[in-house]
Amino acid sequence: MVGGGRGAFIGAVHRMAARLDDRYEFVAGVLSSDPQRSRDSGADLRLAPERCYATLDALLSGEVSRADRIDVVAIVTPNHLHHSAARQCLEAGFHVICDKPLTTTIADAEDLLHVAERTQRVLAVTYNYSGYPMVRQAREMIANGELGELRVAQIEYAQDWLATPVEAAANKQAVWRVDPQKSGVAGAIGDIGTHAFHLAEFMTGMQVTQLAADLSTQVAGRRLDDNGQMLLRFSNGARGSLWASQVAPGNENGLRVRLYGSKAGLEWSQQTPNQLRFAPVGEQPRMVTRGGAGLGTAAASATRLPSGHPEGYIEAFAQIYSDVAELIGAANERKASSAGALLVPTVADGLRGVRFIHAAVESSQRNAAWTAV
Amino acid sequence: MVGGGRGAFIGAVHRMAARLDDRYEFVAGVLSSDPQRSRDSGADLRLAPERCYATLDALLSGEVSRADRIDVVAIVTPNHLHHSAARQCLEAGFHVICDKPLTTTIADAEDLLHVAERTQRVLAVTYNYSGYPMVRQAREMIANGELGELRVAQIEYAQDWLATPVEAAANKQAVWRVDPQKSGVAGAIGDIGTHAFHLAEFMTGMQVTQLAADLSTQVAGRRLDDNGQMLLRFSNGARGSLWASQVAPGNENGLRVRLYGSKAGLEWSQQTPNQLRFAPVGEQPRMVTRGGAGLGTAAASATRLPSGHPEGYIEAFAQIYSDVAELIGAANERKASSAGALLVPTVADGLRGVRFIHAAVESSQRNAAWTAV
Amino acid sequence: MVGGGRGAFIGAVHRMAARLDDRYEFVAGVLSSDPQRSRDSGADLRLAPERCYATLDALLSGEVSRADRIDVVAIVTPNHLHHSAARQCLEAGFHVICDKPLTTTIADAEDLLHVAERTQRVLAVTYNYSGYPMVRQAREMIANGELGELRVAQIEYAQDWLATPVEAAANKQAVWRVDPQKSGVAGAIGDIGTHAFHLAEFMTGMQVTQLAADLSTQVAGRRLDDNGQMLLRFSNGARGSLWASQVAPGNENGLRVRLYGSKAGLEWSQQTPNQLRFAPVGEQPRMVTRGGAGLGTAAASATRLPSGHPEGYIEAFAQIYSDVAELIGAANERKASSAGALLVPTVADGLRGVRFIHAAVESSQRNAAWTAV
Amino acid sequence: MVGGGRGAFIGAVHRMAARLDDRYEFVAGVLSSDPQRSRDSGADLRLAPERCYATLDALLSGEVSRADRIDVVAIVTPNHLHHSAARQCLEAGFHVICDKPLTTTIADAEDLLHVAERTQRVLAVTYNYSGYPMVRQAREMIANGELGELRVAQIEYAQDWLATPVEAAANKQAVWRVDPQKSGVAGAIGDIGTHAFHLAEFMTGMQVTQLAADLSTQVAGRRLDDNGQMLLRFSNGARGSLWASQVAPGNENGLRVRLYGSKAGLEWSQQTPNQLRFAPVGEQPRMVTRGGAGLGTAAASATRLPSGHPEGYIEAFAQIYSDVAELIGAANERKASSAGALLVPTVADGLRGVRFIHAAVESSQRNAAWTAV
Repeated sequence: MVGGGRGAFIGAVHRMAARLDDRYEFVAGVLSSDPQRSRDSGADLRLAPERCYATLDALLSGEVSRADRIDVVAIVTPNHLHHSAARQCLEAGFHVICDKPLTTTIADAEDLLHVAERTQRVLAVTYNYSGYPMVRQAREMIANGELGELRVAQIEYAQDWLATPVEAAANKQAVWRVDPQKSGVAGAIGDIGTHAFHLAEFMTGMQVTQLAADLSTQVAGRRLDDNGQMLLRFSNGARGSLWASQVAPGNENGLRVRLYGSKAGLEWSQQTPNQLRFAPVGEQPRMVTRGGAGLGTAAASATRLPSGHPEGYIEAFAQIYSDVAELIGAANERKASSAGALLVPTVADGLRGVRFIHAAVESSQRNAAWTAV
Repeated sequence: MVGGGRGAFIGAVHRMAARLDDRYEFVAGVLSSDPQRSRDSGADLRLAPERCYATLDALLSGEVSRADRIDVVAIVTPNHLHHSAARQCLEAGFHVICDKPLTTTIADAEDLLHVAERTQRVLAVTYNYSGYPMVRQAREMIANGELGELRVAQIEYAQDWLATPVEAAANKQAVWRVDPQKSGVAGAIGDIGTHAFHLAEFMTGMQVTQLAADLSTQVAGRRLDDNGQMLLRFSNGARGSLWASQVAPGNENGLRVRLYGSKAGLEWSQQTPNQLRFAPVGEQPRMVTRGGAGLGTAAASATRLPSGHPEGYIEAFAQIYSDVAELIGAANERKASSAGALLVPTVADGLRGVRFIHAAVESSQRNAAWTAV
Repeated sequence: MVGGGRGAFIGAVHRMAARLDDRYEFVAGVLSSDPQRSRDSGADLRLAPERCYATLDALLSGEVSRADRIDVVAIVTPNHLHHSAARQCLEAGFHVICDKPLTTTIADAEDLLHVAERTQRVLAVTYNYSGYPMVRQAREMIANGELGELRVAQIEYAQDWLATPVEAAANKQAVWRVDPQKSGVAGAIGDIGTHAFHLAEFMTGMQVTQLAADLSTQVAGRRLDDNGQMLLRFSNGARGSLWASQVAPGNENGLRVRLYGSKAGLEWSQQTPNQLRFAPVGEQPRMVTRGGAGLGTAAASATRLPSGHPEGYIEAFAQIYSDVAELIGAANERKASSAGALLVPTVADGLRGVRFIHAAVESSQRNAAWTAV
Repeated sequence: MVGGGRGAFIGAVHRMAARLDDRYEFVAGVLSSDPQRSRDSGADLRLAPERCYATLDALLSGEVSRADRIDVVAIVTPNHLHHSAARQCLEAGFHVICDKPLTTTIADAEDLLHVAERTQRVLAVTYNYSGYPMVRQAREMIANGELGELRVAQIEYAQDWLATPVEAAANKQAVWRVDPQKSGVAGAIGDIGTHAFHLAEFMTGMQVTQLAADLSTQVAGRRLDDNGQMLLRFSNGARGSLWASQVAPGNENGLRVRLYGSKAGLEWSQQTPNQLRFAPVGEQPRMVTRGGAGLGTAAASATRLPSGHPEGYIEAFAQIYSDVAELIGAANERKASSAGALLVPTVADGLRGVRFIHAAVESSQRNAAWTAV
């Protein structure tokens, strides 16, 4: 693991996600850019001291020669460090699991695409919400034609934790996210909008061809967007809108996807992730539940518990990890992947997310002009 | 009443709304453009046969000379007939309650504004959702500064009844709404988008300065929009989006307003109208309920029942009627109006709604270019 | 109308309910036991002064000889006055609509049953919740066998307005309800438990054969129960429980019925009255909505608005009034009643409710011994 | 681990729960009573073959002499095997984590209480729902007096998976649960009622002194109860009811606790576990959320993620495991336990649960006579 030391949030999530299904062992890391903090964090987590490295170079050279060398590196640093770290790991022959957004520039993301192809290593991107069983159920239902032709997609991801200038109070999560040097060209659109965008394409199986975005900074003094609305057009002519905000009081982590087709509508909300509302035209709306009646294979194979026993964010994240393990296994043995493994967001999805971010920023700079993604 | 005969929907609503609070008596009408249907409808409703007129001209000349002449005419015809009917009634000295949208052109709406001013008659427009107690509560809370500075407004009005070409099956409500000759330049945006727009301005007390709209027709063969997304910019710099759709399966009458300011967020949904979710920054979200703790005077004076005893659509509509009665009383006696009466949407609001419709259509024709409202 | 003067709650509801569907005209009353208050209240409501009577005797003798005499008297007084007033009205040849509980003793209720039968007058009891369209839908679905054999019934009616001793602060509604002289032998069980009991039998079409009740007074100094739990046994062997409380903070008017059979479960809650949750065994639960897909005739004929336009408490109450109008029309003309009219709770239901109250009180006094209803 | 081989449900949950917070390593087991199945199951889980034992005797004798011997044994067999297995493990010096109900007889549970005291070993019972952060938040709020004096407790646990005779179709989970030889004297009351009972006492900090239960078997041919209603009386005079059912279609895992005191009401539902509805008398109800504003230390220390990122059943179960690890650490070092460790349900809670089950069965056999717990 690169990053994820004391005080970090997502590193601990990655570790729990890796552990849950018992497909990974966490054995080495560069847990902080500060060597002492890295060592201390490693000790907290019972890493062997000699595998608690001060730099990524040290980790790669240290691990590459071990018999029990690591298989995969999780990169959980701020955005601006993703590209070089991922590149190094891939070149050294390791598979990579990288946080989103993949990189801060399109060129960097394209570069990783090429490096991953050349090295034949897996580069997974943790668009973790696609690990939720009911998200996969939605994707399967749509692929099966249960919505008919898609007409309308209403996508939103609303939070409230940046409604006040918490970065001024040294909130560690906030500080780097509002800093263009570390976060990249976008704030909320890059941090959460890209998740929403990925889900929209993941669930519908369609591409957003162009968007018209109006990004804004609602908290005075902040340098990146903390709220953005945009219009979407899909490849088949469907229309949509996407809203991402980190200044919407009362929204904790309100990722919500609503899709309407010629035959039915379908709604999913991350805060009640175990259910999907499905409304066929002219019929009574029904609740599709994780583990409940009428589930398809995609959802069934991404769940651990019977219906009514809530699974949540960690389980969805763990699903990504488990599917990546399948994908790596298949890559190592040059075999076909399992169905779940094929759902893993990889470098191509990462690149697409970066393109989305840049399209949104460019559109907004051009006063919401339509911009291709 | 003009319109509202057998088979009509909104005419019956107007009559129930007028009756509920016992401020009106329904005594005369031109209930249909077909004289026989008009008479039959009048008989159904126990109108005196001589006050069941064949034409508006007949009604106006018949009523104007009666000692017990009517005070006010409700116009509940398709849109294209509003202007001439309202104009005639005002000129004849009657107050008017007219359905929305007020007219099919901006010029016609401006004309009615002038006529109403000149004749000193009340011309109310039934933006009926503003009669809901919790909508008024929201308005009062915002006016009191409980949201702080408004930053984000997410407005939507989704229905599903036009998801299939029901007009082809002679659905009476659908047939005229999808006909540009009767409905005007817009479909869903004019029929329901204008309600959503009115609520946004009513609740926030602010104006939308410009919009960028992408209207579309999702059901093949239909001539007017049945779905539209748009970006909004408010006078204070707040941003928003508005979605109006009549092709979203699973949405019966999903009018929903979410407003976020620097101090708090606030959410209201028409299908659960007796509550308002209020989320102050850094505090636990709370449920403000009709008749419950902490209600302001606006909501309190617009409700009939204790908390927990649901009021609905008819009650909100009745509130508009009762407030119009106050407004007419004040107009007749040239006195100041009550607080409730001042909330009634009048001809100026009607004009604003027509401007909104035309701005949306124009923006959409210009590929979602920003357009002033 | 007897009762329902200034400051009363339910009298105004009866008047709105009577007006809504335009089947009644309110023309006479004894609106208060205080003659001046009665006159003032009548003036408020624009009754003709000569039909604003000081006593029920005066009303009956005044009305009986008029050509435009009233058809029906609504009795909306505290409970202890119901019996004598209803008896007088029936004997004088008037139909009666009486609030629940019908009387304070079983003997009085039985007496009214006999008088109503002898006089051939309608005596309706406003178990108003049975007027909700989705309650009738539930009844129809159960009658059609959609639940299979009933197994479990969980019934509850929770409020919070008596969680503090508001009667000490002269809350007019509370004062008489907590007074055994006016309310009868029971508090919460009589005021709201009887509604819940009626719904349970109305919806299931079955009878509760015995109950075991534990009533308690939770607010010190109060003389009647303000909370009660009981076990229920139904005629077919189904089991249930019923909870009625007026001291449950956070419950405004929480009447809720959950019924489970061998084929499906069904849930309805008064605070979201426009929907019914229906869960067939082994299938996805679905939402049955007022005006939505798959509605039966009972619900369809008890509704005024399209789906998604909420109807509420007044509309349900109005449905009872309209159905009573049908019933009276049929009684007057000695014809068969409409289907809706046959759903009206009448004197037999009123008697059954009184039996329930007394069974609960008796059971509780015997330490929750099983007691026949 | 004893039990939990292929096809088992709860064994896998225990293993995930143990792994999540990285406080346990799973190294040995008797995973099935069938030796081959045990070996195969162990191989699936990558146990060392020599630690994949055929019998508990073998496990105890094999482990006790190892330098890397196990610390704790998880017992996840059907109920009838709990007592002897737990006794053996304790006597051999191992700590135990045992599924509920602890035993099938009161005498056996008392025996384990004595053995655990004598051996000074930890015997934790997985009343796992008490691991939910918001359950602990509720407990803390009540202990802090935020509800005032408790008056009413409405407890329910409803499922639907036994609505049909699935045991006849060899549903492995069902077969032993409906078999008195394996399940004990009770069915639904023992399987899920005991969870509900534990939560009621855990959250309120009070004891149920007596109950009056009416248990029934709704599916023909079943030998144990599958549905039960009961009245509860608490030590302070509060009243309640408890409903446990496995035949309520539409209820997946509906464990729900509603508590009402003189100052406030509080509601929690397991299917939306990240929130608590809190309604102080005379104030607006508010939503207390995991990770949100106003949380106490108990909830804060039992959670892993920020608000809005759902935690679920596995996380709550993991919390029990982590707290047991603290408890074992303290026991081993004879030190004071952490606050979390003190919340762990132990043998005393297990005994109390068994007493509850027997009280319910006895009361029901005596026609719902009041029975002390």
